[in-house]
Amino acid sequence: MDYIKIPMDIEKRSFEIIGQEMGEHKYSPRELSIIKRVIHTTADFDYRNILYIRDGAIDAAVELLKKGVTIYTDTKMALAGINKKALKDLNCNALCFVSDENVAEIAKARHITRSMAAVEKAVEDGVEFFIFGNAPTALFRLKELIEEGKCNAKFIIATPIGFVGAAESKIEIEKLDIPMIVVRGRKGGSTVAASILNALMYMIVDRG
Amino acid sequence: MDYIKIPMDIEKRSFEIIGQEMGEHKYSPRELSIIKRVIHTTADFDYRNILYIRDGAIDAAVELLKKGVTIYTDTKMALAGINKKALKDLNCNALCFVSDENVAEIAKARHITRSMAAVEKAVEDGVEFFIFGNAPTALFRLKELIEEGKCNAKFIIATPIGFVGAAESKIEIEKLDIPMIVVRGRKGGSTVAASILNALMYMIVDRG
Repeated sequence: MDYIKIPMDIEKRSFEIIGQEMGEHKYSPRELSIIKRVIHTTADFDYRNILYIRDGAIDAAVELLKKGVTIYTDTKMALAGINKKALKDLNCNALCFVSDENVAEIAKARHITRSMAAVEKAVEDGVEFFIFGNAPTALFRLKELIEEGKCNAKFIIATPIGFVGAAESKIEIEKLDIPMIVVRGRKGGSTVAASILNALMYMIVDRG
Repeated sequence: MDYIKIPMDIEKRSFEIIGQEMGEHKYSPRELSIIKRVIHTTADFDYRNILYIRDGAIDAAVELLKKGVTIYTDTKMALAGINKKALKDLNCNALCFVSDENVAEIAKARHITRSMAAVEKAVEDGVEFFIFGNAPTALFRLKELIEEGKCNAKFIIATPIGFVGAAESKIEIEKLDIPMIVVRGRKGGSTVAASILNALMYMIVDRG
Protein backbone atom coordinates (compact mmCIF):
# COMPACT_ATOMS: atom_id res chain seq x y z
CA MET A 1 0.00 0.00 0.00
CA ASP A 2 1.09 3.51 -0.68
CA TYR A 3 0.83 5.79 2.33
CA ILE A 4 2.90 8.59 3.86
CA LYS A 5 5.33 7.06 6.35
CA ILE A 6 7.39 10.09 7.42
CA PRO A 7 5.99 11.58 10.66
CA MET A 8 7.01 15.16 9.86
CA ASP A 9 5.43 14.92 6.40
CA ILE A 10 2.19 13.63 7.94
CA GLU A 11 2.04 16.51 10.40
CA LYS A 12 2.95 19.13 7.80
CA ARG A 13 0.29 17.86 5.37
CA SER A 14 -2.28 17.69 8.20
CA PHE A 15 -1.67 21.32 9.12
CA GLU A 16 -2.00 22.32 5.46
CA ILE A 17 -5.36 20.57 5.22
CA ILE A 18 -6.53 22.20 8.46
CA GLY A 19 -5.45 25.61 7.18
CA GLN A 20 -7.35 25.10 3.92
CA GLU A 21 -10.53 23.97 5.66
CA MET A 22 -10.45 26.66 8.34
CA GLY A 23 -11.01 29.44 5.87
CA GLU A 24 -11.17 33.04 7.09
CA HIS A 25 -10.15 33.80 10.67
CA LYS A 26 -8.83 36.52 12.93
CA TYR A 27 -6.23 34.55 14.86
CA SER A 28 -2.71 35.87 15.38
CA PRO A 29 0.05 33.51 14.18
CA ARG A 30 0.65 32.21 17.71
CA GLU A 31 -3.07 31.74 18.39
CA LEU A 32 -3.37 29.99 15.05
CA SER A 33 -0.61 27.55 15.99
CA ILE A 34 -2.62 26.57 19.07
CA ILE A 35 -6.01 26.24 17.36
CA LYS A 36 -4.51 24.27 14.48
CA ARG A 37 -2.79 21.87 16.86
CA VAL A 38 -6.01 21.35 18.79
CA ILE A 39 -7.90 20.60 15.56
CA HIS A 40 -5.04 18.31 14.51
CA THR A 41 -5.51 16.44 17.79
CA THR A 42 -9.31 16.22 17.67
CA ALA A 43 -10.24 16.31 13.95
CA ASP A 44 -12.99 18.63 15.16
CA PHE A 45 -13.34 22.12 13.67
CA ASP A 46 -15.82 23.01 16.41
CA TYR A 47 -12.78 24.14 18.39
CA ARG A 48 -12.73 27.28 16.24
CA ASN A 49 -15.81 28.34 18.18
CA ILE A 50 -15.05 27.09 21.68
CA LEU A 51 -11.35 27.67 22.25
CA TYR A 52 -10.84 30.82 24.31
CA ILE A 53 -7.33 32.28 24.52
CA ARG A 54 -7.31 35.17 26.98
CA ASP A 55 -5.36 38.28 25.99
CA GLY A 56 -1.85 37.97 27.38
CA ALA A 57 -2.23 34.25 28.13
CA ILE A 58 0.31 33.13 25.54
CA ASP A 59 2.89 35.66 26.78
CA ALA A 60 2.34 34.53 30.37
CA ALA A 61 2.70 30.86 29.49
CA VAL A 62 5.78 31.40 27.36
CA GLU A 63 7.45 33.43 30.11
CA LEU A 64 6.81 30.68 32.66
CA LEU A 65 7.95 27.92 30.31
CA LYS A 66 11.18 29.82 29.54
CA LYS A 67 11.93 30.03 33.27
CA GLY A 68 11.58 26.26 33.68
CA VAL A 69 8.34 25.69 35.53
CA THR A 70 6.64 22.78 37.27
CA ILE A 71 3.40 21.86 35.52
CA TYR A 72 0.52 20.16 37.26
CA THR A 73 -1.63 17.83 35.15
CA ASP A 74 -4.89 16.33 36.36
CA THR A 75 -4.64 13.05 34.44
CA LYS A 76 -2.01 10.55 33.42
CA MET A 77 -3.40 10.77 29.89
CA ALA A 78 -2.65 14.48 29.69
CA LEU A 79 0.78 13.78 31.15
CA ALA A 80 1.36 11.05 28.54
CA GLY A 81 0.44 13.48 25.76
CA ILE A 82 2.98 16.13 26.70
CA ASN A 83 6.10 16.21 24.51
CA LYS A 84 8.80 15.11 26.96
CA LYS A 85 11.70 16.24 24.79
CA ALA A 86 10.33 19.79 24.58
CA LEU A 87 9.65 19.71 28.32
CA LYS A 88 13.23 18.65 28.99
CA ASP A 89 14.70 21.21 26.58
CA LEU A 90 12.84 23.89 28.55
CA ASN A 91 13.98 22.52 31.93
CA CYS A 92 10.33 22.16 32.84
CA ASN A 93 8.73 19.16 34.47
CA ALA A 94 5.18 17.87 34.55
CA LEU A 95 3.60 16.03 37.46
CA CYS A 96 0.40 14.10 38.04
CA PHE A 97 -0.61 13.08 41.54
CA VAL A 98 -3.95 11.45 40.78
CA SER A 99 -2.64 7.90 41.14
CA ASP A 100 -0.57 8.56 44.27
CA GLU A 101 -1.51 6.25 47.10
CA ASN A 102 -1.81 8.98 49.72
CA VAL A 103 -3.99 11.03 47.36
CA ALA A 104 -6.34 8.05 46.99
CA GLU A 105 -6.45 7.64 50.78
CA ILE A 106 -7.21 11.31 51.38
CA ALA A 107 -9.94 11.27 48.71
CA LYS A 108 -11.57 8.19 50.21
CA ALA A 109 -11.44 9.50 53.77
CA ARG A 110 -12.88 12.90 52.83
CA HIS A 111 -15.38 11.66 50.23
CA ILE A 112 -13.90 13.86 47.54
CA THR A 113 -12.52 12.94 44.13
CA ARG A 114 -8.90 11.89 43.76
CA SER A 115 -8.55 14.79 41.33
CA MET A 116 -9.51 17.22 44.12
CA ALA A 117 -7.04 15.70 46.55
CA ALA A 118 -4.39 15.78 43.82
CA VAL A 119 -4.82 19.48 43.06
CA GLU A 120 -4.66 20.25 46.78
CA LYS A 121 -1.31 18.49 46.90
CA ALA A 122 -0.09 20.48 43.89
CA VAL A 123 -1.14 23.74 45.56
CA GLU A 124 0.64 22.75 48.77
CA ASP A 125 3.74 22.13 46.69
CA GLY A 126 3.54 25.68 45.29
CA VAL A 127 2.67 24.81 41.70
CA GLU A 128 1.75 27.86 39.57
CA PHE A 129 1.09 26.32 36.13
CA PHE A 130 -1.99 24.10 35.85
CA ILE A 131 -3.46 21.85 33.17
CA PHE A 132 -6.92 20.36 33.58
CA GLY A 133 -8.00 18.03 30.80
CA ASN A 134 -10.58 15.98 32.56
CA ALA A 135 -11.57 16.77 36.10
CA PRO A 136 -14.13 19.52 36.73
CA THR A 137 -13.95 18.86 40.47
CA ALA A 138 -10.25 19.69 40.48
CA LEU A 139 -10.90 22.93 38.62
CA PHE A 140 -13.69 23.91 41.06
CA ARG A 141 -11.33 23.11 43.93
CA LEU A 142 -8.52 25.16 42.42
CA LYS A 143 -10.82 28.15 42.16
CA GLU A 144 -11.70 27.79 45.84
CA LEU A 145 -8.03 27.55 46.83
CA ILE A 146 -7.17 30.65 44.77
CA GLU A 147 -10.03 32.60 46.35
CA GLU A 148 -8.88 31.49 49.79
CA GLY A 149 -5.46 32.97 48.94
CA LYS A 150 -3.78 29.57 49.13
CA CYS A 151 -2.67 29.38 45.53
CA ASN A 152 -0.77 31.77 43.31
CA ALA A 153 -1.81 30.32 39.94
CA LYS A 154 -0.07 32.15 37.08
CA PHE A 155 -1.37 30.19 34.10
CA ILE A 156 -4.19 27.69 33.60
CA ILE A 157 -5.19 25.44 30.72
CA ALA A 158 -8.79 24.48 31.47
CA THR A 159 -10.30 21.89 29.14
CA PRO A 160 -12.30 19.47 31.34
CA ILE A 161 -14.65 17.41 29.21
CA GLY A 162 -18.02 15.93 30.00
CA PHE A 163 -21.62 16.28 31.02
CA VAL A 164 -21.52 16.92 34.75
CA GLY A 165 -19.71 20.02 35.90
CA ALA A 166 -17.29 20.41 33.02
CA ALA A 167 -18.88 23.45 31.38
CA GLU A 168 -19.76 24.91 34.79
CA SER A 169 -16.22 24.49 36.14
CA LYS A 170 -14.85 26.41 33.16
CA ILE A 171 -17.38 29.23 33.57
CA GLU A 172 -16.26 29.53 37.20
CA ILE A 173 -12.52 29.58 36.47
CA GLU A 174 -13.01 32.21 33.77
CA LYS A 175 -14.27 34.59 36.47
CA LEU A 176 -10.73 34.79 37.83
CA ASP A 177 -8.31 37.38 36.48
CA ILE A 178 -5.56 34.90 35.59
CA PRO A 179 -3.95 34.17 32.20
CA MET A 180 -5.74 31.13 30.81
CA ILE A 181 -6.70 29.10 27.79
CA VAL A 182 -10.13 27.48 28.04
CA VAL A 183 -12.28 25.17 25.95
CA ARG A 184 -15.81 26.40 26.63
CA GLY A 185 -18.74 24.04 26.97
CA ARG A 186 -18.68 20.26 27.25
CA LYS A 187 -15.78 19.49 24.95
CA GLY A 188 -12.06 19.37 25.64
CA GLY A 189 -10.22 16.47 27.23
CA SER A 190 -6.73 15.37 28.13
CA THR A 191 -5.51 15.16 24.53
CA VAL A 192 -6.65 18.76 23.97
CA ALA A 193 -4.96 19.95 27.17
CA ALA A 194 -1.69 18.30 26.20
CA SER A 195 -1.85 19.65 22.64
CA ILE A 196 -2.29 23.22 23.91
CA LEU A 197 0.75 22.87 26.15
CA ASN A 198 2.73 21.33 23.31
CA ALA A 199 1.76 24.19 20.98
CA LEU A 200 2.97 26.68 23.61
CA MET A 201 6.27 24.82 24.04
CA TYR A 202 6.83 24.68 20.26
CA MET A 203 6.75 28.49 20.25
CA ILE A 204 10.08 28.32 22.09
CA VAL A 205 11.74 24.99 21.27
CA ASP A 206 11.72 22.53 18.38
CA ARG A 207 9.26 19.68 18.77
CA GLY A 208 12.04 17.16 18.00
CA MET B 1 -19.31 26.08 45.67
CA ASP B 2 -21.81 23.29 45.32
CA TYR B 3 -20.75 20.59 42.91
CA ILE B 4 -20.92 16.79 42.75
CA LYS B 5 -17.77 15.37 44.32
CA ILE B 6 -18.43 11.62 44.25
CA PRO B 7 -16.86 10.05 41.15
CA MET B 8 -19.47 7.30 40.79
CA ASP B 9 -22.29 9.84 41.05
CA ILE B 10 -20.66 11.98 38.36
CA GLU B 11 -20.37 9.03 35.99
CA LYS B 12 -23.89 7.81 36.70
CA ARG B 13 -25.39 11.25 36.12
CA SER B 14 -23.31 11.68 32.95
CA PHE B 15 -24.63 8.43 31.51
CA GLU B 16 -28.20 9.48 32.36
CA ILE B 17 -27.74 12.74 30.47
CA ILE B 18 -26.20 10.94 27.50
CA GLY B 19 -29.13 8.48 27.47
CA GLN B 20 -31.64 11.34 27.52
CA GLU B 21 -29.95 13.23 24.71
CA MET B 22 -29.33 10.18 22.53
CA GLY B 23 -33.02 9.64 21.91
CA GLU B 24 -34.17 6.70 19.75
CA HIS B 25 -31.61 4.11 18.77
CA LYS B 26 -31.24 0.49 17.73
CA TYR B 27 -28.25 -0.48 19.85
CA SER B 28 -28.22 -3.68 21.91
CA PRO B 29 -27.50 -3.14 25.63
CA ARG B 30 -23.84 -4.10 25.18
CA GLU B 31 -23.43 -1.89 22.10
CA LEU B 32 -25.12 0.91 24.01
CA SER B 33 -22.64 0.58 26.87
CA ILE B 34 -19.81 1.14 24.38
CA ILE B 35 -21.37 4.06 22.50
CA LYS B 36 -22.36 5.77 25.75
CA ARG B 37 -18.86 5.43 27.15
CA VAL B 38 -17.36 6.86 23.97
CA ILE B 39 -19.73 9.85 24.12
CA HIS B 40 -18.92 10.20 27.83
CA THR B 41 -15.23 10.39 26.86
CA THR B 42 -15.64 12.82 23.95
CA ALA B 43 -18.77 14.87 24.72
CA ASP B 44 -19.47 14.35 21.03
CA PHE B 45 -22.73 12.77 19.89
CA ASP B 46 -21.34 12.45 16.37
CA TYR B 47 -20.07 9.04 17.51
CA ARG B 48 -23.63 7.75 17.13
CA ASN B 49 -23.03 8.01 13.38
CA ILE B 50 -19.39 6.97 13.05
CA LEU B 51 -18.86 4.13 15.56
CA TYR B 52 -19.00 0.78 13.75
CA ILE B 53 -19.29 -2.35 15.87
CA ARG B 54 -19.00 -5.41 13.63
CA ASP B 55 -21.41 -8.28 14.31
CA GLY B 56 -19.70 -10.71 16.69
CA ALA B 57 -16.97 -8.24 17.65
CA ILE B 58 -18.13 -7.85 21.23
CA ASP B 59 -18.33 -11.63 21.72
CA ALA B 60 -14.85 -12.06 20.25
CA ALA B 61 -13.36 -9.34 22.46
CA VAL B 62 -15.05 -10.61 25.60
CA GLU B 63 -13.84 -14.16 24.94
CA LEU B 64 -10.24 -12.97 24.52
CA LEU B 65 -10.40 -10.74 27.58
CA LYS B 66 -11.76 -13.61 29.69
CA LYS B 67 -8.82 -15.76 28.65
CA GLY B 68 -6.32 -13.13 29.79
CA VAL B 69 -4.86 -11.61 26.67
CA THR B 70 -1.95 -9.35 25.79
CA ILE B 71 -3.18 -6.08 24.31
CA TYR B 72 -1.11 -3.95 21.98
CA THR B 73 -1.67 -0.18 22.12
CA ASP B 74 -0.19 2.25 19.62
CA THR B 75 0.23 5.18 22.03
CA LYS B 76 1.14 5.82 25.62
CA MET B 77 -1.98 7.97 25.89
CA ALA B 78 -4.23 5.04 25.01
CA LEU B 79 -2.24 2.90 27.44
CA ALA B 80 -2.69 5.54 30.16
CA GLY B 81 -6.46 5.59 29.58
CA ILE B 82 -6.97 1.86 30.08
CA ASN B 83 -8.41 0.91 33.47
CA LYS B 84 -5.51 -0.93 35.09
CA LYS B 85 -7.59 -2.50 37.85
CA ALA B 86 -9.99 -4.07 35.33
CA LEU B 87 -7.02 -5.21 33.25
CA LYS B 88 -5.45 -6.84 36.29
CA ASP B 89 -8.73 -8.45 37.39
CA LEU B 90 -8.91 -10.06 33.95
CA ASN B 91 -5.28 -11.19 34.04
CA CYS B 92 -4.74 -9.19 30.86
CA ASN B 93 -1.85 -6.87 30.17
CA ALA B 94 -1.42 -3.93 27.83
CA LEU B 95 1.81 -2.96 26.12
CA CYS B 96 3.05 -0.01 24.13
CA PHE B 97 6.36 -0.19 22.28
CA VAL B 98 6.31 3.20 20.61
CA SER B 99 8.84 4.74 23.00
CA ASP B 100 11.18 1.74 23.09
CA GLU B 101 14.71 2.69 22.12
CA ASN B 102 15.18 -0.14 19.63
CA VAL B 103 11.85 0.73 18.00
CA ALA B 104 13.05 4.32 17.53
CA GLU B 105 16.31 3.06 16.04
CA ILE B 106 14.57 0.71 13.61
CA ALA B 107 12.16 3.46 12.56
CA LYS B 108 14.98 5.90 11.92
CA ALA B 109 17.08 3.40 9.99
CA ARG B 110 14.19 2.31 7.78
CA HIS B 111 12.55 5.74 7.37
CA ILE B 112 9.24 4.48 8.76
CA THR B 113 7.20 5.76 11.67
CA ARG B 114 7.92 4.53 15.19
CA SER B 115 4.30 3.34 15.25
CA MET B 116 5.01 1.03 12.30
CA ALA B 117 8.14 -0.38 13.92
CA ALA B 118 6.18 -0.83 17.16
CA VAL B 119 3.36 -2.81 15.55
CA GLU B 120 5.92 -5.02 13.80
CA LYS B 121 7.42 -5.82 17.19
CA ALA B 122 3.97 -6.65 18.59
CA VAL B 123 3.28 -8.98 15.66
CA GLU B 124 6.65 -10.69 16.16
CA ASP B 125 5.68 -11.19 19.79
CA GLY B 126 2.46 -12.94 18.71
CA VAL B 127 -0.02 -10.30 19.88
CA GLU B 128 -3.61 -10.97 18.73
CA PHE B 129 -5.55 -8.07 20.31
CA PHE B 130 -4.81 -4.61 18.91
CA ILE B 131 -5.81 -1.06 19.78
CA PHE B 132 -4.99 1.83 17.46
CA GLY B 133 -5.98 5.24 18.75
CA ASN B 134 -3.67 7.43 16.79
CA ALA B 135 -1.38 5.95 14.18
CA PRO B 136 -2.77 5.28 10.69
CA THR B 137 0.64 4.06 9.55
CA ALA B 138 0.57 1.30 12.17
CA LEU B 139 -2.89 0.23 11.06
CA PHE B 140 -1.82 0.16 7.39
CA ARG B 141 1.23 -1.88 8.42
CA LEU B 142 -0.88 -4.31 10.45
CA LYS B 143 -3.09 -4.94 7.43
CA GLU B 144 -0.02 -5.71 5.34
CA LEU B 145 1.32 -8.12 7.97
CA ILE B 146 -2.05 -9.90 8.21
CA GLU B 147 -2.24 -10.23 4.43
CA GLU B 148 1.30 -11.61 4.39
CA GLY B 149 0.14 -14.27 6.85
CA LYS B 150 2.47 -13.00 9.56
CA CYS B 151 -0.20 -11.97 12.06
CA ASN B 152 -3.17 -13.79 13.50
CA ALA B 153 -5.15 -10.75 14.70
CA LYS B 154 -8.31 -11.83 16.50
CA PHE B 155 -9.71 -8.44 17.54
CA ILE B 156 -8.98 -4.87 16.54
CA ILE B 157 -10.07 -1.50 17.90
CA ALA B 158 -9.31 0.97 15.12
CA THR B 159 -9.82 4.62 15.97
CA PRO B 160 -6.88 6.53 14.45
CA ILE B 161 -7.64 10.24 14.31
CA GLY B 162 -6.52 12.87 11.90
CA PHE B 163 -6.31 14.32 8.45
CA VAL B 164 -3.68 12.24 6.69
CA GLY B 165 -4.35 8.54 6.34
CA ALA B 166 -6.63 8.08 9.35
CA ALA B 167 -9.91 7.59 7.46
CA GLU B 168 -8.12 5.65 4.70
CA SER B 169 -6.40 3.31 7.17
CA LYS B 170 -9.77 2.43 8.69
CA ILE B 171 -11.35 1.80 5.29
CA GLU B 172 -8.48 -0.60 4.57
CA ILE B 173 -8.69 -2.51 7.85
CA GLU B 174 -12.46 -2.92 7.47
CA LYS B 175 -11.80 -4.96 4.32
CA LEU B 176 -10.45 -7.75 6.52
CA ASP B 177 -12.79 -10.37 7.94
CA ILE B 178 -11.74 -9.90 11.57
CA PRO B 179 -13.85 -8.88 14.57
CA MET B 180 -13.38 -5.15 15.00
CA ILE B 181 -14.74 -1.90 16.35
CA VAL B 182 -13.96 1.12 14.19
CA VAL B 183 -14.54 4.86 14.31
CA ARG B 184 -15.09 5.77 10.69
CA GLY B 185 -13.78 8.98 9.14
CA ARG B 186 -11.34 11.44 10.69
CA LYS B 187 -12.42 11.26 14.31
CA GLY B 188 -11.38 8.88 17.07
CA GLY B 189 -8.20 9.12 19.12
CA SER B 190 -6.44 7.48 21.99
CA THR B 191 -9.07 8.42 24.58
CA VAL B 192 -11.75 6.83 22.39
CA ALA B 193 -9.70 3.67 21.88
CA ALA B 194 -9.16 3.31 25.62
CA SER B 195 -12.81 3.97 26.41
CA ILE B 196 -13.93 1.22 24.02
CA LEU B 197 -11.60 -1.27 25.67
CA ASN B 198 -12.75 -0.15 29.11
CA ALA B 199 -16.41 -0.60 28.10
CA LEU B 200 -15.61 -4.13 26.92
CA MET B 201 -13.82 -4.95 30.17
CA TYR B 202 -16.70 -3.58 32.26
CA MET B 203 -18.95 -6.17 30.59
CA ILE B 204 -17.01 -8.78 32.58
CA VAL B 205 -15.52 -7.10 35.66
CA ASP B 206 -16.42 -4.16 37.89
CA ARG B 207 -14.71 -0.91 36.97
CA GLY B 208 -13.52 -0.48 40.55
